[in-house]
Amino acid sequence: MDPFILHADFVLTMNQNNLVINDGAVLIGGSGRIQAVDKAETLFKNHPDVPVKRLKDRLLMPGLINTHAHSGLLRGTAEGLPVWEWLQRFIDPMHRVLTPAEAEIAAYLCYAESLLAGTTTIVDMWRFMQGSAHAAEELGIRAVLVPYVAEHPDHDYFETLDSNETLIRRWHGGAGGRIQVWVGLEHMFYATPEAWRRAMQMAQHYQVGFHTHSNESRFDVEETQRRYNCRPVEALEQFGLLEAPHTLLAHCVWLSENEINLLARHHVGVAHNPVSNMKLASGAAPVEALLAQGVAVGLGTDGEKENNNLDMFEEMKTASLLAKLSKLDAAALDAWSVCRMATIGGARALGLDKEIGSIENGKQADLIAVHTDTPHMTPLLGGADGNLHHNLVHAVQGGDVDMTLVAGRILVENGVLQSANLRTLINDANAAVPDLFRRRAEWLASHDSINELLRD
Amino acid sequence: MDPFILHADFVLTMNQNNLVINDGAVLIGGSGRIQAVDKAETLFKNHPDVPVKRLKDRLLMPGLINTHAHSGLLRGTAEGLPVWEWLQRFIDPMHRVLTPAEAEIAAYLCYAESLLAGTTTIVDMWRFMQGSAHAAEELGIRAVLVPYVAEHPDHDYFETLDSNETLIRRWHGGAGGRIQVWVGLEHMFYATPEAWRRAMQMAQHYQVGFHTHSNESRFDVEETQRRYNCRPVEALEQFGLLEAPHTLLAHCVWLSENEINLLARHHVGVAHNPVSNMKLASGAAPVEALLAQGVAVGLGTDGEKENNNLDMFEEMKTASLLAKLSKLDAAALDAWSVCRMATIGGARALGLDKEIGSIENGKQADLIAVHTDTPHMTPLLGGADGNLHHNLVHAVQGGDVDMTLVAGRILVENGVLQSANLRTLINDANAAVPDLFRRRAEWLASHDSINELLRD
Repeated sequence: MDPFILHADFVLTMNQNNLVINDGAVLIGGSGRIQAVDKAETLFKNHPDVPVKRLKDRLLMPGLINTHAHSGLLRGTAEGLPVWEWLQRFIDPMHRVLTPAEAEIAAYLCYAESLLAGTTTIVDMWRFMQGSAHAAEELGIRAVLVPYVAEHPDHDYFETLDSNETLIRRWHGGAGGRIQVWVGLEHMFYATPEAWRRAMQMAQHYQVGFHTHSNESRFDVEETQRRYNCRPVEALEQFGLLEAPHTLLAHCVWLSENEINLLARHHVGVAHNPVSNMKLASGAAPVEALLAQGVAVGLGTDGEKENNNLDMFEEMKTASLLAKLSKLDAAALDAWSVCRMATIGGARALGLDKEIGSIENGKQADLIAVHTDTPHMTPLLGGADGNLHHNLVHAVQGGDVDMTLVAGRILVENGVLQSANLRTLINDANAAVPDLFRRRAEWLASHDSINELLRD
Repeated sequence: MDPFILHADFVLTMNQNNLVINDGAVLIGGSGRIQAVDKAETLFKNHPDVPVKRLKDRLLMPGLINTHAHSGLLRGTAEGLPVWEWLQRFIDPMHRVLTPAEAEIAAYLCYAESLLAGTTTIVDMWRFMQGSAHAAEELGIRAVLVPYVAEHPDHDYFETLDSNETLIRRWHGGAGGRIQVWVGLEHMFYATPEAWRRAMQMAQHYQVGFHTHSNESRFDVEETQRRYNCRPVEALEQFGLLEAPHTLLAHCVWLSENEINLLARHHVGVAHNPVSNMKLASGAAPVEALLAQGVAVGLGTDGEKENNNLDMFEEMKTASLLAKLSKLDAAALDAWSVCRMATIGGARALGLDKEIGSIENGKQADLIAVHTDTPHMTPLLGGADGNLHHNLVHAVQGGDVDMTLVAGRILVENGVLQSANLRTLINDANAAVPDLFRRRAEWLASHDSINELLRD
């Protein structure tokens, strides 16, 4: 790749001072990394021979980092139930019948949707993730692949630590470093103590991260207290499950003060999923308290079935709204904090803040251009006292993204996916779904015990 | 206008059974009204000579009805304060210096944004509304214009009942019936008892509706109790302010059981504004309790400064999420109820349900086409057991709107505004804002009493 310069009306660097450069430019080196960020005039003077792509009526900002998602094919078909009932009725039976081909189709659709809406890095907890790796490699997104592992007699229909290890060996560091593979676990309850130990050994052996769900609903806390006589994060610590090189916990809605302190002490990252937490009626995570203790909090969309889209701009807005509502304080969680959660805060939550999350020299050129000549961004007031950050959080939507680059490669241009034919990905998903649903219905019909459970 | 047929993959009629017609069509007569709705095949057979516009990969549904909005130019510049402080710091001083030309520019921008995101009817409470009428007439939106009236010595910088009456005489029923003008009032506190009486007399004399804000924040309730020793809706009833031919109240967040009963008994419509209520930390309105009592509840975006966009699809999603969170019940406010609030429920809240809000014979052809060949709508499952309604509420955004028609006239096609040059409207707004802000700053600098109030 030859070096090139992107020249935009505004560059939101998301550096430690939230610097916004009016009429700014970014030099992207042949390595796909950022080599310089400055006023356009200065950059042109210093690099007169480098070709320039002019992004008029657009701003440049770091690509968004989706710290918790699940690929899937159930959008709009698993509605109106709280988390644990919903898992039993819709989700677990799907996992029992899902095929690798279906899982791969879901990953392609999910990553395409993400890139189109400005997400450049996605943490995907999903199934048969060789297919996910193929999708990430081809579409060009940066991905942290985390298999949905269960190691428990009651949940023998997910990924296993064996399949997780195979994926790490084959794909960790793959696609030129764009793909990471971590150790995953659906939930602490979905594994035996022996599996907990092996999961940690595996994370340490391969020096990869660990990701699971925790403290999502009140049921989660109550059930942990019933089983172990302590709260979930306390149980994770007690059972050694915070001892991976890096840990990311999804949700963390119901946390005690002691649990927040444990998260801070163990440098655990948190993936905050406000849309999912509202839609499944889980609750409102104590985001400001976490940030105040120095916990790295990123934002996540959760899956297509919990949200039902993968738009991180919508997640930013919902994070702001939920914080303000739940504290009845219109000043709660200011717009810059939300912008940071979606970018550099997410990078920190993944332990990847040296590589991604801001527009700074040496970092990966994971960038997005957002239209500014829209009603959403009118009036347009740049600079330190401007309103760009307020409107990025509260007015802009994924559809306002014009261009998405990962490692300097343009994956979306003029709002169109460049690395695959979107229509084909959509058609593949629509073609796959009827048979998946038929097999799930058959499984449910032949397993009365589940149906009896649901009737209780 | 010659009659024509729109033929879409799905027609969501929003009739009383929420009928969805797969491969459906709508015949639009020369009057701009709906003359037939049926399976496409049947309609083609019965009307062989009428030209057909094929909307492949799109669904047709009634245009969205925004029951509470304010045009404005403050997007992203009035952030992080609760309602009453925010009014004093940012909003009221703007009203003191706003000019008719600026108000008209704001109305053009607001109606353009609305049409692009699928809103066909907007209730706009705004200033110098001759300009708003011009904007609605030219852009083609259906509008209920409600001047921001204040009649109180402390608030002598808004519209007046005189200017409201002038507007009614000139514009009520204008633009071929697309424009209604109602009697408006910023808030009960912004008028004297004499003005309350005149407002009701005016509404009765001209047989128009009445619209004001009520029960938005806890302060609103507490201050009413302090002043009048009763709650706001009780005060409205006591002072005769529920005696207009039709009344629409915005917000109604903090309501007692008695107030809900009063709203039902007086057939008062409610405009629910979940984004605004969250952003300004007002609270969560008891939507399900209102619906259970038969109160007509519509959705509203509120203004560009409270939201910060005018996307009714986002409002639908937020209504669903807020209901689920505030009751910690994932089954709260199901998707069909939300779809109804955004369409026929909004029409009822305005007393216009005989004219708009559903795709039924004889009604105005206020329609929108939404893309279905998107990740947001994948998988795509039509019919009674399908997922269209779930994804319209939780996945679709304003940017997915392909076509908007009001009274049979195509105002947006291929996502592009047809009735004006959007770029010009945006440029006009950007050009107007610096001087407006300069005058507001001057006014604030010269009025220490307000600044002292804010320092308290």
